[in-house]
Amino acid sequence: SPQSCVIDTLINGKIQAAIDSKVHSILAKRRLICTTAFSRGANAYCPSGYLATGCACGMACGSWDIRGDATCHCQCANIDWTSARCCKVAIVG
Amino acid sequence: SPQSCVIDTLINGKIQAAIDSKVHSILAKRRLICTTAFSRGANAYCPSGYLATGCACGMACGSWDIRGDATCHCQCANIDWTSARCCKVAIVG
Amino acid sequence: SPQSCVIDTLINGKIQAAIDSKVHSILAKRRLICTTAFSRGANAYCPSGYLATGCACGMACGSWDIRGDATCHCQCANIDWTSARCCKVAIVG
Repeated sequence: SPQSCVIDTLINGKIQAAIDSKVHSILAKRRLICTTAFSRGANAYCPSGYLATGCACGMACGSWDIRGDATCHCQCANIDWTSARCCKVAIVG
Repeated sequence: SPQSCVIDTLINGKIQAAIDSKVHSILAKRRLICTTAFSRGANAYCPSGYLATGCACGMACGSWDIRGDATCHCQCANIDWTSARCCKVAIVG
Repeated sequence: SPQSCVIDTLINGKIQAAIDSKVHSILAKRRLICTTAFSRGANAYCPSGYLATGCACGMACGSWDIRGDATCHCQCANIDWTSARCCKVAIVG
């Protein structure tokens, strides 16, 4: 009936407007967050919740691999340090 | 009129509460997902939908570049293997 | 009262449906975006809003560190170039 249509449209309009503003404000707070995990020796471990996105090694070594999604392992001999770059998506602020 | 105000407030309240809980539950599922693409030779290719965030090379080589957003290319001579670290934001679970 | 229950259920149903479709469509647009910042010398700087996820260096050097979340620094001697892989989460399209 015409009357219920009006209410329908009214509610739909309210819902869309509320969702738009809310979703964008929450989404804007979800960012990429990164940190670095440095360690002596040939392995470096990202903090819980983070994933390794890249690794650096001592001895100018560019040969590394990532184990278990969050551990950097440097493969050259006599590696003195390893550094993991660790990132995640989380709410900021 | 006072009566329509009451309905307004009621509907607005419902909408906000529903959005809050829904948006946070959906957002919480959107995470950073990473994988590694290993390959013989001087190039490694991320799976479709992923972007390269870092590269590792054989021969201790740390000189690399990323081509087309998802391909790691190791620049040193006689590179025996290349590994791409590949990430994306996607819904998990 | 039964009557207000009907309105309640109607409004809740509308809200859930609207939120589902809206949130998923907005979320789908929020992606991981990456770019590369290349520079002569031992430092490369990510554009504003991006974070460094990994670094490459000239001279086959795999020893680098990230400073201030968005600057790649290559540690070997006589570094001729540095490249930063830079990413962020943003709305695409």
